[in-house]
Amino acid sequence: MSDHHPPVYEGLNCPVPLRHTEEIILGHGSGGKLTDDLIKNVFMPHLASPPLSEANDFAVVQPDPNKTAEGSLIVSTDGHIVSPIVFPGGDIGRLAVCGTVNDISMSGGTPLYLTASFILEEGLPVVQLRDVVKSMKEAAEEANVQVIAGDTKVVERGKADKIFIATTGIGWLPKSRQINGKMAQPGDVVIVSGTLGDHGIAVLAAREELGFLTDLRSDVAPLNHLIAGLLRSAPNTHVLRDPTRGGLATSLNEIANQSQVSIWIKEQDIPVNPAVNAACEMLGFDPMYIANEGKVIAIVPADEAREALSAIQENPYGRHAAIIGEVRQSHAGQVLMQTAIGGTRILERLAGEILPRIC
Amino acid sequence: MSDHHPPVYEGLNCPVPLRHTEEIILGHGSGGKLTDDLIKNVFMPHLASPPLSEANDFAVVQPDPNKTAEGSLIVSTDGHIVSPIVFPGGDIGRLAVCGTVNDISMSGGTPLYLTASFILEEGLPVVQLRDVVKSMKEAAEEANVQVIAGDTKVVERGKADKIFIATTGIGWLPKSRQINGKMAQPGDVVIVSGTLGDHGIAVLAAREELGFLTDLRSDVAPLNHLIAGLLRSAPNTHVLRDPTRGGLATSLNEIANQSQVSIWIKEQDIPVNPAVNAACEMLGFDPMYIANEGKVIAIVPADEAREALSAIQENPYGRHAAIIGEVRQSHAGQVLMQTAIGGTRILERLAGEILPRIC
Repeated sequence: MSDHHPPVYEGLNCPVPLRHTEEIILGHGSGGKLTDDLIKNVFMPHLASPPLSEANDFAVVQPDPNKTAEGSLIVSTDGHIVSPIVFPGGDIGRLAVCGTVNDISMSGGTPLYLTASFILEEGLPVVQLRDVVKSMKEAAEEANVQVIAGDTKVVERGKADKIFIATTGIGWLPKSRQINGKMAQPGDVVIVSGTLGDHGIAVLAAREELGFLTDLRSDVAPLNHLIAGLLRSAPNTHVLRDPTRGGLATSLNEIANQSQVSIWIKEQDIPVNPAVNAACEMLGFDPMYIANEGKVIAIVPADEAREALSAIQENPYGRHAAIIGEVRQSHAGQVLMQTAIGGTRILERLAGEILPRIC
Repeated sequence: MSDHHPPVYEGLNCPVPLRHTEEIILGHGSGGKLTDDLIKNVFMPHLASPPLSEANDFAVVQPDPNKTAEGSLIVSTDGHIVSPIVFPGGDIGRLAVCGTVNDISMSGGTPLYLTASFILEEGLPVVQLRDVVKSMKEAAEEANVQVIAGDTKVVERGKADKIFIATTGIGWLPKSRQINGKMAQPGDVVIVSGTLGDHGIAVLAAREELGFLTDLRSDVAPLNHLIAGLLRSAPNTHVLRDPTRGGLATSLNEIANQSQVSIWIKEQDIPVNPAVNAACEMLGFDPMYIANEGKVIAIVPADEAREALSAIQENPYGRHAAIIGEVRQSHAGQVLMQTAIGGTRILERLAGEILPRIC
C-alpha cells in the first residue's frame, strides 16, 4: 500500500511560483518551498556567489584572498524573530546563539565568533532585554564562542515585535574535511540525535497557552561539542544538518536533492516525544515538519554507523539518538518513509508555513 | 567669547542613566550617549570580549585559533531599519552593503565577504524587495565584495516595517597595520572626506516630503577604494572613522575619548552642503550631529596630511574633502569647535535621538 497524498496542512499556503505572487506572505519565511522560490527568483539572480550556490547553511571561504590557508573560514547568518521571546526551555537569546553555533557546526568546523545585531521595539522593558542578553552569554559560554561585534537599532512602537536578533557566526575548518549536503552516498546510514518537534511544539504551546503541554520544553541547545565527539568517532561522516524550519522532512529533502540520492526512513524508528505526538494529532500537524533547535541529522558510512550513534548518545543532548534510515541510489531527490502500517509515503519538503515565528 | 550651551535639540530625549529607564526608547538606537548607556549597562556586563571592549566599529580576530596568521580577520555587523526604504541617492539595500563595507574599511583592512539577514513584513510587494536586492548587488559589485550567506524571515503585517536588513562584513587586514580610535596623537591633522549631513537630511526630506530639498541626495557609498588610495599615500594614518549615527560630533568625541586627546576643529573649514545648512537652520538641527553614510574622518600625522588630502580628493566620493582641525594634548576627551564668529564651543556627543530610523 502506497500513500502519495501530500500532508494535510500543505494546502494552508499554496506553493505557487513566486512570479504569481505579488506580496510577501508568511510562507516565504518557512524554510520550505516558498522560501526556496524566493531565494531562486529574487535573491540568487542578483546575489549569487559560489558559497551561496552551494545551498548549505554555511559558507566556506578563504580568510586571506592572496594565500591559501591551512583551513577555511565557515560563515553563517540567521535572523531570529521567535514569538513569544521566552518559551519553555529557552528564549530568543539562547536561540540566536545556538542557531548560529549549530549552522557553523554542521560544516564539521569549530564555531569561534559571533556577531549580534539587535532590532528593538520602543517600549520594550529593559529587564526583558537584560534577561535575553544573559541567556546569550550563558549559551555562548556553553558553546565556547566569543561575541565580537554588536549593533542596536530601535524602531517605533508597533514597527517591530519586542526583539529581533540577527546573528552571524564565524568558525574554522582546520583540514580538508568534506562535510556537506552533496556528500550523501548510497549505503550511508541516517541518524537523528534525538526526539523531533520539541522546539516547534513548545513555542506553539507557549504562544497559544496550550495547558496540556506543560511538561514539554524546547530542545534549543548548542551542538558543537556533540558534533566534535561524533567526528572523533566517525571521522568520515558525510553530511550533518540541523532540521530547523521545515523539520526533518525538509532537511532530508534538501540533502536528497543536493546529493542526488534517495533517503529512506522508517516511521517507527524516528524518536518523537509522546507529548509532541499528542499535540500534533490534536492540531493536525506532522512532527516530521516541525522545527528543532537542538537536533542534528548525521549521514555516515555504514561501517561507522555504530560508533557514530554511540558517540552521539554519550552527549547529554544526544541521549535519544537513533538510526532512522539509509541512503539509496534509485528515486534520486526523493525522501520515502515506510509508515508504521506498512506503506511507503513520499515525504515532500514543507510547502508554506505551518508554524510562523518559531525561530 | 565662549559658547558652552548644549545644542538646542539635546533635550528631546533626556540622557538619563539606564538604571532610571525602565523601557527602551528611540534614543537607545541613536548611536549617542543613550546607546552608550545601553551598551555599558546591559550588553557589556554579559557579552564583554576583548574585541567588543575596544569600542571600534569592527573587531579584529584570528581566523585559526591554534596559529597566528600573517594578518587578521576584520568583522563588523549592523542592522538597517531606514524609513523610507527608498530615498534620494539610495535605498536600504545600498545602505546595508555600504554601511558594513565602510565599517570594515575603517580598520584599514580590505572588505571581502558579506552576509545578509532579511526580516520582511508580510504584505511587502515583491517588486520592492527585488529593487532592494538589485541595489545590494550593485553596491557589492562596486565595493568588490561577495555576498556569501543569507537568511530570510517573515513576520506578520504590523510586526515589522517593510524590510529590515542586518549585514555582517568580513575583511582581511594583511599586515600589522595599527589603525583604530586609540591611535590619535597630539599634532595629528583631522580630515573629513566631504560635505556633512547629506544622508540624514536626504532621508528626512524623503520621509517628511520637504519639497524645498529636491536636489539633496544621500551620500551613501562604499568607501573602501577611497580608503585604499588614502593608505597608499598616507600609510601612517592613525584613525579612520565613518561619522554615521550621531554625526561628526559624536565620532570625534569617541576618538577623543579612546585616544585621551582633544580634537579642535574650525567651523568655517567644515564642508556642509548649503541645502543641508538651510534645512538644519529651518528645523533646528546641527549638521555636526547628522548621519553620513559615505564620509570618512581621517586622522593622520601632520607630515602626511597634504598627501592624504590629495589622495582622498582624487576619489569621486572625496572631491570636497577638507582639513578641518587638529589633535592636541590638553582637554583630553573633549572636542572643541572654533565657531565662525570667533568663540569656542564644546561639541558634546549626541545625547538622545534627533532623527530616528535614518540608517
